Amino acid sequence: MKQLHRTDLFGWSEFNPERNLDFYSVLWVRAEGNVLIDPLPLSAHDQNHLRQLGGAKIIVITNSDHCRDAFHIAKVTGAALYGPESERSNFPITCDHWLHDNQAIVPGLVAYQLQGSKTSGELALVLEQTTLITGDLIRCHTAGKLCILPDAKLTDSVLAKQSVKRLANLSGITTVLVGDGWPLFVQGGQALNALADSL
Amino acid sequence: MKQLHRTDLFGWSEFNPERNLDFYSVLWVRAEGNVLIDPLPLSAHDQNHLRQLGGAKIIVITNSDHCRDAFHIAKVTGAALYGPESERSNFPITCDHWLHDNQAIVPGLVAYQLQGSKTSGELALVLEQTTLITGDLIRCHTAGKLCILPDAKLTDSVLAKQSVKRLANLSGITTVLVGDGWPLFVQGGQALNALADSL
Repeated sequence: MKQLHRTDLFGWSEFNPERNLDFYSVLWVRAEGNVLIDPLPLSAHDQNHLRQLGGAKIIVITNSDHCRDAFHIAKVTGAALYGPESERSNFPITCDHWLHDNQAIVPGLVAYQLQGSKTSGELALVLEQTTLITGDLIRCHTAGKLCILPDAKLTDSVLAKQSVKRLANLSGITTVLVGDGWPLFVQGGQALNALADSL
Repeated sequence: MKQLHRTDLFGWSEFNPERNLDFYSVLWVRAEGNVLIDPLPLSAHDQNHLRQLGGAKIIVITNSDHCRDAFHIAKVTGAALYGPESERSNFPITCDHWLHDNQAIVPGLVAYQLQGSKTSGELALVLEQTTLITGDLIRCHTAGKLCILPDAKLTDSVLAKQSVKRLANLSGITTVLVGDGWPLFVQGGQALNALADSL
Protein backbone atom coordinates (compact mmCIF):
# COMPACT_ATOMS: atom_id res chain seq x y z
CA MET A 1 0.00 0.00 0.00
CA LYS A 2 1.08 3.51 -0.73
CA GLN A 3 1.58 6.23 1.84
CA LEU A 4 -0.78 9.12 1.15
CA HIS A 5 -0.29 12.70 2.45
CA ARG A 6 -0.39 11.66 6.11
CA THR A 7 1.46 8.91 7.89
CA ASP A 8 -1.85 7.38 9.03
CA LEU A 9 -3.39 7.27 5.56
CA PHE A 10 -2.63 4.70 2.88
CA GLY A 11 -4.10 3.84 -0.48
CA TRP A 12 -4.05 1.18 -3.13
CA SER A 13 -5.20 1.39 -6.69
CA GLU A 14 -6.12 -0.55 -9.80
CA PHE A 15 -5.91 0.69 -13.36
CA ASN A 16 -9.24 0.65 -15.18
CA PRO A 17 -8.59 0.22 -18.91
CA GLU A 18 -12.14 1.16 -19.90
CA ARG A 19 -11.78 4.65 -18.44
CA ASN A 20 -7.97 4.98 -18.55
CA LEU A 21 -7.75 5.97 -14.93
CA ASP A 22 -6.98 4.38 -11.58
CA PHE A 23 -9.58 3.30 -9.07
CA TYR A 24 -8.49 4.05 -5.50
CA SER A 25 -9.18 2.78 -2.00
CA VAL A 26 -8.22 4.35 1.31
CA LEU A 27 -6.97 2.96 4.62
CA TRP A 28 -7.05 5.11 7.76
CA VAL A 29 -4.84 3.68 10.50
CA ARG A 30 -6.24 4.42 13.97
CA ALA A 31 -5.36 3.10 17.43
CA GLU A 32 -9.08 2.37 17.94
CA GLY A 33 -9.32 0.25 14.79
CA ASN A 34 -8.51 0.85 11.15
CA VAL A 35 -11.03 2.03 8.57
CA LEU A 36 -11.10 0.95 4.91
CA ILE A 37 -13.07 2.91 2.34
CA ASP A 38 -14.38 1.33 -0.90
CA PRO A 39 -11.74 -1.43 -0.77
CA LEU A 40 -10.57 -2.91 -4.05
CA PRO A 41 -9.16 -6.45 -4.01
CA LEU A 42 -5.87 -6.57 -2.10
CA SER A 43 -2.76 -8.20 -3.53
CA ALA A 44 -1.02 -10.74 -1.27
CA HIS A 45 1.57 -8.03 -0.56
CA ASP A 46 -1.07 -5.47 0.43
CA GLN A 47 -2.98 -8.02 2.51
CA ASN A 48 0.21 -8.58 4.45
CA HIS A 49 0.84 -4.82 4.70
CA LEU A 50 -2.69 -4.31 6.01
CA ARG A 51 -2.12 -6.98 8.66
CA GLN A 52 1.12 -5.28 9.72
CA LEU A 53 -0.76 -2.00 10.01
CA GLY A 54 -3.37 -3.54 12.29
CA GLY A 55 -5.98 -5.05 9.95
CA ALA A 56 -9.42 -3.50 9.57
CA LYS A 57 -12.26 -2.86 12.02
CA ILE A 58 -14.59 -0.87 9.78
CA ILE A 59 -15.27 -0.89 6.05
CA VAL A 60 -17.24 2.03 4.63
CA ILE A 61 -18.84 1.65 1.19
CA THR A 62 -19.83 4.96 -0.37
CA ASN A 63 -22.37 3.56 -2.83
CA SER A 64 -23.76 0.32 -4.25
CA ASP A 65 -21.46 0.51 -7.30
CA HIS A 66 -18.37 0.67 -5.05
CA CYS A 67 -18.78 -2.58 -3.10
CA ARG A 68 -15.70 -3.85 -4.95
CA ASP A 69 -14.10 -6.48 -2.67
CA ALA A 70 -15.63 -5.20 0.57
CA PHE A 71 -17.66 -8.31 1.39
CA HIS A 72 -14.67 -10.63 1.00
CA ILE A 73 -12.28 -8.33 2.89
CA ALA A 74 -14.82 -8.02 5.72
CA LYS A 75 -14.92 -11.81 6.01
CA VAL A 76 -11.13 -12.08 6.06
CA THR A 77 -10.49 -9.21 8.47
CA GLY A 78 -13.61 -9.41 10.62
CA ALA A 79 -14.40 -5.77 9.85
CA ALA A 80 -17.95 -4.43 10.15
CA LEU A 81 -19.56 -3.15 6.95
CA TYR A 82 -21.09 0.33 6.76
CA GLY A 83 -23.23 1.36 3.77
CA PRO A 84 -25.57 4.21 2.85
CA GLU A 85 -29.02 3.97 4.50
CA SER A 86 -30.70 5.35 1.38
CA GLU A 87 -29.47 2.40 -0.70
CA ARG A 88 -30.25 -0.23 1.92
CA SER A 89 -33.22 -1.79 0.11
CA ASN A 90 -31.21 -2.49 -3.05
CA PHE A 91 -27.69 -2.84 -1.70
CA PRO A 92 -25.77 -5.78 -3.20
CA ILE A 93 -24.52 -6.91 0.21
CA THR A 94 -25.89 -6.77 3.72
CA CYS A 95 -24.13 -4.22 5.88
CA ASP A 96 -23.85 -4.25 9.65
CA HIS A 97 -24.58 -0.53 9.87
CA TRP A 98 -26.34 1.95 7.62
CA LEU A 99 -25.22 5.55 7.49
CA HIS A 100 -27.34 8.70 7.47
CA ASP A 101 -26.43 12.18 6.34
CA ASN A 102 -24.10 14.01 8.70
CA GLN A 103 -23.39 10.91 10.75
CA ALA A 104 -20.05 10.46 12.51
CA ILE A 105 -18.90 6.93 11.67
CA VAL A 106 -16.09 7.19 14.20
CA PRO A 107 -14.77 10.41 15.78
CA GLY A 108 -13.24 12.44 12.93
CA LEU A 109 -14.98 10.68 10.04
CA VAL A 110 -18.31 12.15 8.94
CA ALA A 111 -20.60 10.79 6.21
CA TYR A 112 -22.46 13.22 3.97
CA GLN A 113 -25.30 11.94 1.83
CA LEU A 114 -25.31 13.21 -1.72
CA GLN A 115 -28.44 13.43 -3.82
CA GLY A 116 -29.10 12.89 -7.50
CA SER A 117 -25.94 10.88 -8.19
CA LYS A 118 -25.78 7.59 -10.12
CA THR A 119 -27.16 5.80 -7.08
CA SER A 120 -29.72 7.26 -4.75
CA GLY A 121 -27.82 7.59 -1.51
CA GLU A 122 -24.13 7.92 -2.38
CA LEU A 123 -21.98 9.10 0.50
CA ALA A 124 -18.96 11.37 0.63
CA LEU A 125 -16.75 11.26 3.72
CA VAL A 126 -14.82 14.00 5.46
CA LEU A 127 -11.86 12.94 7.55
CA GLU A 128 -10.80 15.30 10.33
CA GLN A 129 -12.34 18.25 8.46
CA THR A 130 -9.50 18.35 5.94
CA THR A 131 -9.66 15.31 3.65
CA LEU A 132 -12.72 14.76 1.47
CA ILE A 133 -13.13 11.17 0.25
CA THR A 134 -15.55 10.69 -2.62
CA GLY A 135 -17.08 7.68 -4.32
CA ASP A 136 -18.48 8.23 -7.80
CA LEU A 137 -20.06 11.68 -8.19
CA ILE A 138 -16.88 13.73 -7.75
CA ARG A 139 -13.96 12.37 -9.76
CA CYS A 140 -10.67 13.38 -11.36
CA HIS A 141 -9.93 12.50 -14.97
CA THR A 142 -7.37 15.24 -15.67
CA ALA A 143 -4.83 15.48 -12.86
CA GLY A 144 -5.33 18.49 -10.60
CA LYS A 145 -8.93 19.18 -11.69
CA LEU A 146 -12.16 17.72 -10.39
CA CYS A 147 -15.20 16.82 -12.46
CA ILE A 148 -18.54 15.12 -11.86
CA LEU A 149 -20.30 12.23 -13.54
CA PRO A 150 -21.88 13.23 -16.85
CA ASP A 151 -25.53 14.33 -16.73
CA ALA A 152 -26.63 11.12 -18.46
CA LYS A 153 -25.42 9.10 -15.48
CA LEU A 154 -27.12 11.25 -12.84
CA THR A 155 -30.55 10.51 -11.47
CA ASP A 156 -31.12 14.23 -10.81
CA SER A 157 -28.59 16.69 -12.18
CA VAL A 158 -29.86 19.69 -10.20
CA LEU A 159 -29.74 17.84 -6.88
CA ALA A 160 -26.33 16.34 -7.69
CA LYS A 161 -24.86 19.77 -8.38
CA GLN A 162 -26.41 21.13 -5.18
CA SER A 163 -24.71 18.29 -3.31
CA VAL A 164 -21.33 19.23 -4.80
CA LYS A 165 -21.86 22.88 -3.83
CA ARG A 166 -22.74 21.80 -0.29
CA LEU A 167 -19.42 19.96 0.00
CA ALA A 168 -17.56 22.91 -1.52
CA ASN A 169 -19.02 25.11 1.23
CA LEU A 170 -17.27 23.06 3.91
CA SER A 171 -14.28 24.99 5.15
CA GLY A 172 -10.85 23.53 5.72
CA ILE A 173 -10.72 20.91 2.95
CA THR A 174 -7.14 20.61 1.69
CA THR A 175 -7.17 17.16 0.08
CA VAL A 176 -9.68 15.36 -2.11
CA LEU A 177 -9.30 11.59 -2.50
CA VAL A 178 -11.62 10.38 -5.24
CA GLY A 179 -12.62 6.78 -5.81
CA ASP A 180 -12.12 7.13 -9.55
CA GLY A 181 -9.10 9.04 -10.85
CA TRP A 182 -6.19 11.06 -9.50
CA PRO A 183 -6.05 12.11 -5.86
CA LEU A 184 -5.65 15.85 -5.17
CA PHE A 185 -3.26 16.12 -2.26
CA VAL A 186 -2.67 19.86 -2.56
CA GLN A 187 -5.23 22.66 -3.01
CA GLY A 188 -8.08 20.15 -2.97
CA GLY A 189 -10.45 22.74 -1.53
CA GLN A 190 -9.65 25.18 -4.32
CA ALA A 191 -10.30 22.47 -6.92
CA LEU A 192 -13.59 21.65 -5.23
CA ASN A 193 -14.62 25.31 -5.29
CA ALA A 194 -13.61 25.61 -8.94
CA LEU A 195 -15.76 22.57 -9.71
CA ALA A 196 -18.74 24.00 -7.81
CA ASP A 197 -18.36 27.36 -9.58
CA SER A 198 -18.35 25.60 -12.96
CA LEU A 199 -21.67 23.79 -12.39
CA MET B 1 -2.53 5.19 -20.05
CA LYS B 2 -3.65 7.89 -17.70
CA GLN B 3 -4.17 11.50 -18.64
CA LEU B 4 -1.86 13.73 -16.61
CA HIS B 5 -2.40 17.48 -16.00
CA ARG B 6 -2.30 18.35 -19.71
CA THR B 7 -4.13 16.79 -22.61
CA ASP B 8 -0.80 16.04 -24.32
CA LEU B 9 0.75 14.28 -21.35
CA PHE B 10 0.03 10.73 -20.26
CA GLY B 11 1.52 8.36 -17.73
CA TRP B 12 1.52 4.74 -16.73
CA SER B 13 2.66 3.20 -13.50
CA GLU B 14 3.60 0.01 -11.73
CA PHE B 15 3.40 -0.64 -8.01
CA ASN B 16 6.74 -1.53 -6.44
CA PRO B 17 6.10 -3.73 -3.39
CA GLU B 18 9.65 -3.36 -2.07
CA ARG B 19 9.25 0.42 -1.65
CA ASN B 20 5.44 0.60 -1.37
CA LEU B 21 5.19 3.24 -4.08
CA ASP B 22 4.42 3.46 -7.78
CA PHE B 23 7.03 3.76 -10.49
CA TYR B 24 5.93 6.15 -13.24
CA SER B 25 6.62 6.74 -16.92
CA VAL B 26 5.62 9.71 -19.05
CA LEU B 27 4.39 10.10 -22.63
CA TRP B 28 4.44 13.50 -24.32
CA VAL B 29 2.22 13.56 -27.41
CA ARG B 30 3.60 15.91 -30.09
CA ALA B 31 2.72 16.44 -33.74
CA GLU B 32 6.45 16.10 -34.54
CA GLY B 33 6.72 12.71 -32.82
CA ASN B 34 5.93 11.46 -29.34
CA VAL B 35 8.43 11.25 -26.50
CA LEU B 36 8.54 8.53 -23.84
CA ILE B 37 10.50 9.02 -20.63
CA ASP B 38 11.82 6.08 -18.57
CA PRO B 39 9.22 3.70 -20.03
CA LEU B 40 8.07 0.78 -17.89
CA PRO B 41 6.70 -2.29 -19.65
CA LEU B 42 3.40 -1.50 -21.38
CA SER B 43 0.32 -3.67 -20.93
CA ALA B 44 -1.41 -4.79 -24.13
CA HIS B 45 -4.02 -2.11 -23.46
CA ASP B 46 -1.42 0.63 -23.08
CA GLN B 47 0.52 -0.57 -26.13
CA ASN B 48 -2.67 -0.13 -28.10
CA HIS B 49 -3.34 3.25 -26.49
CA LEU B 50 0.17 4.38 -27.39
CA ARG B 51 -0.38 3.32 -31.00
CA GLN B 52 -3.64 5.29 -31.11
CA LEU B 53 -1.79 8.33 -29.76
CA GLY B 54 0.84 8.10 -32.49
CA GLY B 55 3.46 5.67 -31.18
CA ALA B 56 6.88 6.91 -30.08
CA LYS B 57 9.70 8.69 -31.88
CA ILE B 58 12.03 9.35 -28.97
CA ILE B 59 12.71 7.52 -25.72
CA VAL B 60 14.65 9.40 -23.04
CA ILE B 61 16.28 7.42 -20.23
CA THR B 62 17.23 9.55 -17.25
CA ASN B 63 19.79 7.16 -15.78
CA SER B 64 21.21 3.67 -16.10
CA ASP B 65 18.93 2.32 -13.36
CA HIS B 66 15.84 3.51 -15.26
CA CYS B 67 16.25 1.63 -18.54
CA ARG B 68 13.21 -0.39 -17.54
CA ASP B 69 11.63 -1.62 -20.82
CA ALA B 70 13.14 1.11 -23.03
CA PHE B 71 15.18 -1.20 -25.25
CA HIS B 72 12.24 -3.45 -26.05
CA ILE B 73 9.81 -0.54 -26.59
CA ALA B 74 12.34 1.13 -28.91
CA LYS B 75 12.48 -2.04 -30.99
CA VAL B 76 8.69 -2.30 -31.18
CA THR B 77 8.01 1.39 -31.90
CA GLY B 78 11.14 2.27 -33.87
CA ALA B 79 11.89 5.11 -31.43
CA ALA B 80 15.42 6.46 -31.02
CA LEU B 81 17.03 6.03 -27.59
CA TYR B 82 18.52 9.00 -25.72
CA GLY B 83 20.65 8.48 -22.61
CA PRO B 84 22.97 10.55 -20.42
CA GLU B 85 26.41 11.18 -21.96
CA SER B 86 28.08 10.87 -18.56
CA GLU B 87 26.90 7.27 -18.18
CA ARG B 88 27.71 6.26 -21.76
CA SER B 89 30.69 4.07 -20.92
CA ASN B 90 28.70 1.88 -18.51
CA PHE B 91 25.18 2.20 -19.87
CA PRO B 92 23.29 -1.13 -19.99
CA ILE B 93 22.04 -0.46 -23.53
CA THR B 94 23.40 1.38 -26.53
CA CYS B 95 21.60 4.64 -27.15
CA ASP B 96 21.31 6.45 -30.49
CA HIS B 97 22.01 9.81 -28.86
CA TRP B 98 23.76 10.89 -25.68
CA LEU B 99 22.60 13.97 -23.80
CA HIS B 100 24.69 16.73 -22.26
CA ASP B 101 23.76 19.21 -19.59
CA ASN B 102 21.39 21.93 -20.75
CA GLN B 103 20.71 20.21 -24.05
CA ALA B 104 17.35 20.64 -25.81
CA ILE B 105 16.24 17.14 -26.80
CA VAL B 106 13.42 18.56 -28.90
CA PRO B 107 12.07 22.12 -28.70
CA GLY B 108 10.52 22.48 -25.25
CA LEU B 109 12.30 19.57 -23.58
CA VAL B 110 15.62 20.35 -21.89
CA ALA B 111 17.93 17.87 -20.16
CA TYR B 112 19.78 18.91 -17.01
CA GLN B 113 22.63 16.79 -15.75
CA LEU B 114 22.65 16.16 -12.04
CA GLN B 115 25.76 15.36 -10.08
CA GLY B 116 26.43 13.10 -7.14
CA SER B 117 23.30 10.99 -7.51
CA LYS B 118 23.18 7.17 -7.45
CA THR B 119 24.57 7.09 -10.97
CA SER B 120 27.10 9.53 -12.27
CA GLY B 121 25.19 11.39 -14.95
CA GLU B 122 21.52 11.22 -14.05
CA LEU B 123 19.34 13.62 -16.00
CA ALA B 124 16.30 15.64 -15.00
CA LEU B 125 14.08 17.01 -17.76
CA VAL B 126 12.11 20.23 -17.95
CA LEU B 127 9.15 20.29 -20.31
CA GLU B 128 8.06 23.70 -21.59
CA GLN B 129 9.58 25.37 -18.52
CA THR B 130 6.74 24.21 -16.27
CA THR B 131 6.95 20.44 -15.75
CA LEU B 132 10.02 18.93 -14.11
CA ILE B 133 10.46 15.22 -14.78
CA THR B 134 12.90 13.41 -12.50
CA GLY B 135 14.47 9.98 -12.47
CA ASP B 136 15.87 8.78 -9.17
CA LEU B 137 17.41 11.62 -7.15
CA ILE B 138 14.21 13.60 -6.54
CA ARG B 139 11.31 11.40 -5.47
CA CYS B 140 8.02 11.46 -3.59
CA HIS B 141 7.31 8.93 -0.86
CA THR B 142 4.71 10.97 1.07
CA ALA B 143 2.16 12.50 -1.27
CA GLY B 144 2.62 16.24 -1.79
CA LYS B 145 6.22 16.34 -0.48
CA LEU B 146 9.47 15.73 -2.31
CA CYS B 147 12.52 13.98 -0.93
CA ILE B 148 15.86 12.81 -2.28
CA LEU B 149 17.67 9.50 -2.20
CA PRO B 150 19.23 8.77 1.18
CA ASP B 151 22.86 9.84 1.62
CA ALA B 152 24.00 6.21 1.59
CA LYS B 153 22.81 5.87 -2.01
CA LEU B 154 24.48 9.06 -3.26
CA THR B 155 27.94 9.11 -4.81
CA ASP B 156 28.44 12.69 -3.58
CA SER B 157 25.89 14.13 -1.18
CA VAL B 158 27.13 17.73 -1.46
CA LEU B 159 27.02 17.74 -5.25
CA ALA B 160 23.64 16.00 -5.30
CA LYS B 161 22.15 18.64 -3.01
CA GLN B 162 23.65 21.41 -5.15
CA SER B 163 21.98 19.82 -8.16
CA VAL B 164 18.61 19.87 -6.42
CA LYS B 165 19.10 23.54 -5.50
CA ARG B 166 19.97 24.34 -9.10
CA LEU B 167 16.66 22.84 -10.27
CA ALA B 168 14.79 24.66 -7.51
CA ASN B 169 16.21 27.92 -8.84
CA LEU B 170 14.49 27.41 -12.18
CA SER B 171 11.46 29.67 -12.33
CA GLY B 172 8.05 28.63 -13.56
CA ILE B 173 7.96 25.00 -12.41
CA THR B 174 4.38 24.08 -11.47
CA THR B 175 4.45 20.30 -11.75
CA VAL B 176 6.98 17.67 -10.69
CA LEU B 177 6.64 14.19 -12.19
CA VAL B 178 8.97 11.84 -10.38
CA GLY B 179 10.01 8.42 -11.63
CA ASP B 180 9.53 6.90 -8.19
CA GLY B 181 6.50 7.91 -6.14
CA TRP B 182 3.55 10.31 -6.34
CA PRO B 183 3.40 12.99 -9.02
CA LEU B 184 2.95 16.57 -7.79
CA PHE B 185 0.57 18.20 -10.21
CA VAL B 186 -0.06 21.32 -8.15
CA GLN B 187 2.48 23.56 -6.38
CA GLY B 188 5.34 21.42 -7.61
CA GLY B 189 7.67 24.42 -7.62
CA GLN B 190 6.86 25.18 -3.99
CA ALA B 191 7.54 21.56 -3.05
CA LEU B 192 10.85 21.70 -4.90
CA ASN B 193 11.84 24.87 -3.06
CA ALA B 194 10.82 23.35 0.26
CA LEU B 195 13.02 20.35 -0.52
CA ALA B 196 15.97 22.55 -1.50
CA ASP B 197 15.56 24.62 1.69
CA SER B 198 15.58 21.44 3.78
CA LEU B 199 18.92 20.18 2.40
